[in-house]
Amino acid sequence: MRVRHKPWARGKLDRHSDIVVRSPKYYSGEWNEAFQREARLCVEIGTGKGKFIVGMAEKYPDANFIGIELQESIIVSALEKCLDDEIENVRLVNADARGLTEFFAEDEVDDIYLNFCDPWPKNRHEKRRLTYASFLAQYEYVLKSHGVIHFKTDNQGLFEYSLESFSQYGFLLQNISLDLHHSGDKENIMTEYEEKFSEKGQRIYRCEAVCSD
Amino acid sequence: MRVRHKPWARGKLDRHSDIVVRSPKYYSGEWNEAFQREARLCVEIGTGKGKFIVGMAEKYPDANFIGIELQESIIVSALEKCLDDEIENVRLVNADARGLTEFFAEDEVDDIYLNFCDPWPKNRHEKRRLTYASFLAQYEYVLKSHGVIHFKTDNQGLFEYSLESFSQYGFLLQNISLDLHHSGDKENIMTEYEEKFSEKGQRIYRCEAVCSD
Repeated sequence: MRVRHKPWARGKLDRHSDIVVRSPKYYSGEWNEAFQREARLCVEIGTGKGKFIVGMAEKYPDANFIGIELQESIIVSALEKCLDDEIENVRLVNADARGLTEFFAEDEVDDIYLNFCDPWPKNRHEKRRLTYASFLAQYEYVLKSHGVIHFKTDNQGLFEYSLESFSQYGFLLQNISLDLHHSGDKENIMTEYEEKFSEKGQRIYRCEAVCSD
Repeated sequence: MRVRHKPWARGKLDRHSDIVVRSPKYYSGEWNEAFQREARLCVEIGTGKGKFIVGMAEKYPDANFIGIELQESIIVSALEKCLDDEIENVRLVNADARGLTEFFAEDEVDDIYLNFCDPWPKNRHEKRRLTYASFLAQYEYVLKSHGVIHFKTDNQGLFEYSLESFSQYGFLLQNISLDLHHSGDKENIMTEYEEKFSEKGQRIYRCEAVCSD
């Protein structure tokens, strides 16, 4: 994603501490407190400009959503969407996803969303892919039993890799689509990236991986 | 596959009992005897006109291959290929694949090949798909520990279904390709059907499912 530097981003994020959680570790095991209600907890890793998570939050008002995004100049757009749409069931975390097991307690999360993450196509960068085994171990830790990882990408190589990685790790696969936008799935909420690539006629791949333990 | 009726097929199959095994149950647990040597045992289910199995037999002379095909008028073409090429490491079984666990003993088979099987797209025909759970149970029974099912199809819906079915049954997925003929895999041996569909520019899907017990 092309990022325009926004020097004012940090200030804006700081001013909205009701939505932007600066110390996610503080809520580990107690995210219901951040939302002041008990609800299904859904986490998007790499939430970008927030189109997906805000769309999901509007569609599923009974669930709590957390969007994690490393870049300040990007996550600030997600914040703006939350403010514009007066979204109450989204919290944003401006941090590196590698801290996941510090942000959430064991068995705390119901759903994890991975949308169009960096494919890192070179073999020597395999460990950076968000579906590499060390990341799957983190997801497994924070997910409840039968919790679900929802994965979408337009990158064929990453999808092939990820199906194998999920399977070899012991997750069970379901709801596989090799051409999501021609599958008649009307429930799908698109990300910015997805909209752009789908318009070009590229296939979007989707699968869900279920924590089987 | 379009089938021209060949009334002479049965006679020809009967005359070549060195290649065409009429009583596969007789060899259950002792297929090495049918080949008069001990070797890796590879089984193709729905072997059609035999292009794949004869190609594999020529490429891997150290393995024993068995092709199962229900239709006499089709399997006779596979027989003719074996005769033309003087193939010694193929045996043909003219029978319904549903008898698999009668033809082979537990843990006898190293590899199973499923190539371009009927997709049976209607939900009510799910049980007929060769990757339906009841078939997977048969494959698991006859396969050795870490034995492999090699699956290819041009049918997107069947491939999506089969990935899920393998995964849910407990097989581990590997070597997934969502566009086999553009993946640079030079080891691939094509079936008649595959050649035809690939020439039309259609994607060929491939995966392997490993028996994990």
